[in-house]
Amino acid sequence: MYKVSYDRLIEITSQILEGFGYPPDRAAITAETLVEADARGVPSHGVARLEFYKSNIDSGFAVPDADPEVLFETPLSLTVDGHKGVGPYVSLFCVKRCMEKVKQSGAAFAAVRKSNHFGMAGLWAERFAKEGFIGIALTNTIRAGIPTFGRERMLGTNPICVAIPGDGDDMFMVDIATSTVSRGKVEVYDRRGKKMPEGWGVGSDGHITTDPSEIVKLMRPGNPFGGLLYLGGEGEILGGHKGYGLALLVELLCVGLSLGDLSRDALTVKDATVCHFFGAIDLKLFGDVAAIKNKVSEILEAMRKSAKAEGQERIYIPGEKETENRAKSLREGIQLDDATLNLLNKYAAELGVEPLA
Amino acid sequence: MYKVSYDRLIEITSQILEGFGYPPDRAAITAETLVEADARGVPSHGVARLEFYKSNIDSGFAVPDADPEVLFETPLSLTVDGHKGVGPYVSLFCVKRCMEKVKQSGAAFAAVRKSNHFGMAGLWAERFAKEGFIGIALTNTIRAGIPTFGRERMLGTNPICVAIPGDGDDMFMVDIATSTVSRGKVEVYDRRGKKMPEGWGVGSDGHITTDPSEIVKLMRPGNPFGGLLYLGGEGEILGGHKGYGLALLVELLCVGLSLGDLSRDALTVKDATVCHFFGAIDLKLFGDVAAIKNKVSEILEAMRKSAKAEGQERIYIPGEKETENRAKSLREGIQLDDATLNLLNKYAAELGVEPLA
Repeated sequence: MYKVSYDRLIEITSQILEGFGYPPDRAAITAETLVEADARGVPSHGVARLEFYKSNIDSGFAVPDADPEVLFETPLSLTVDGHKGVGPYVSLFCVKRCMEKVKQSGAAFAAVRKSNHFGMAGLWAERFAKEGFIGIALTNTIRAGIPTFGRERMLGTNPICVAIPGDGDDMFMVDIATSTVSRGKVEVYDRRGKKMPEGWGVGSDGHITTDPSEIVKLMRPGNPFGGLLYLGGEGEILGGHKGYGLALLVELLCVGLSLGDLSRDALTVKDATVCHFFGAIDLKLFGDVAAIKNKVSEILEAMRKSAKAEGQERIYIPGEKETENRAKSLREGIQLDDATLNLLNKYAAELGVEPLA
Repeated sequence: MYKVSYDRLIEITSQILEGFGYPPDRAAITAETLVEADARGVPSHGVARLEFYKSNIDSGFAVPDADPEVLFETPLSLTVDGHKGVGPYVSLFCVKRCMEKVKQSGAAFAAVRKSNHFGMAGLWAERFAKEGFIGIALTNTIRAGIPTFGRERMLGTNPICVAIPGDGDDMFMVDIATSTVSRGKVEVYDRRGKKMPEGWGVGSDGHITTDPSEIVKLMRPGNPFGGLLYLGGEGEILGGHKGYGLALLVELLCVGLSLGDLSRDALTVKDATVCHFFGAIDLKLFGDVAAIKNKVSEILEAMRKSAKAEGQERIYIPGEKETENRAKSLREGIQLDDATLNLLNKYAAELGVEPLA
């Protein structure tokens, strides 16, 4: 493990992105998005994604200098075409526009098509919550998961993120892939030669496999069969149909409202990319904001203080681990694994950027 | 199994509710709510609930003739105190008010405290979707489930329902308890002497049990330990923290915004009842409504037509099974099990109402 300061990691990531052809403003917000994920202990959405971002440029799915275009707008909403631009830049554009609207109107929503990977959903929802609003961020992704009773990857990992502010810095933030696990987690099990738990994925017949290398192989482009399961696993006995229902909900809000590309096609069919949905709702709509924030914290505190399972010492609030990781990373530096360090230094060498020592 | 027509079941249910002291308008909407659930094949929310409704009146948690009161209101929202009134009546009140607001404003939300059991969440969300809006209905419930790493029942089964209209009658409606299963399902396994799958519930130590009678016993009032797990089961390996996060999201939107009673206390602590949250969003906010509905149906149709797992013949859209059950029930009558038939006829005899033949 290699440790690097937050600022230094931002610097090299920005420089590499500029080397990829990102204009400086887009490199800056993308570097922030990636480094924030590493700082929070979510490396699956961190700087290791540079490789994915580069490949999306090379294959024509991402256009670093494209500008988002507002297709339709009301005092409460906007519909945006990202023109295959940079995901974090398109997202920041939408969040800023929604922020103006929610302050004026009390609620704001954005449906976005033709965008690209926007990093951790939580980073966008959190911007609303930090201003005192309920924040929502959803996205579809490249095809990853299997509908209940199916065997074809039809939906992405389709995360749901909602952030709700409490007293002071207290905040609730659920930020979850609707698939049981991410593709990255399966890859980690594959590299370590471990069997997967039942409930993570199915083979090309649509039934449970515990072999991660089978899933990794099946999920390569070109083969649509076999892949991840949604929360609740195979069939209905543990609620797999519920996880599938939530993934499909995300698909409809992102793709349906924006008239965008289906996860089935995203980053696979020419010019098909991903869609997002953002939302912000003012607590003022419901009365006394201070009392509501207080009540939110009362509920969160009741969870924290409730009785622990035998052998457990702590009950977490969604988002809390990531907040604590971030504070630690800012204090002590961000940990990068060797593969990620080597990736950064490979790009640094290619692009004439100063490598990490 | 006994078969009864939809209209006859509405009639006797209304009469029994009036016998309980419900004014006729409240008896009518409550009977419709219960009978619709039976018609859709969701008997856990059907007329068998009359017993629960009666016990809530007897114990002072429900006041059949209480009127809902609007505490706070904006063009986009209302906050309501149900004054321990009838859940379906309070819900209908909120849905009607939100319907006016969404038609005017493009979006509408209601936070509700001091209400009671509102039946299937889907019935409320569907009212919005049938008018062309995205519909949302959430509720907390009596304590039922355990936070990840906990052993104390802190949250209800806290369902999430979102309905989205497609072309014509096509509709998506996810309507799911965030707990892996309902309390009713555990009771069925108990009556049949079957072992539960791992992932449904935990004992008083906070760890998996497969004994349904243990869960049923632990979930009696007075004991707060042991109960249901949320979607994803125990711990984090299959995503149990995600299901818990969704249940807590529902709690915050229902209880936090309305300043209502926590699930921990609802129907347990004196005067503490349940909270709801309703939402409606106009598709018009995002552009061409016909094109959006068309896209929604395109996505749903892609799911239906995708490749089936070996041994499976059909991939469902959330809500589809219930819609088909309803059509069959209207054609052929609604099925009641013997216990439910006997319950209705017991109340009929007590209240001087004509029994089911």
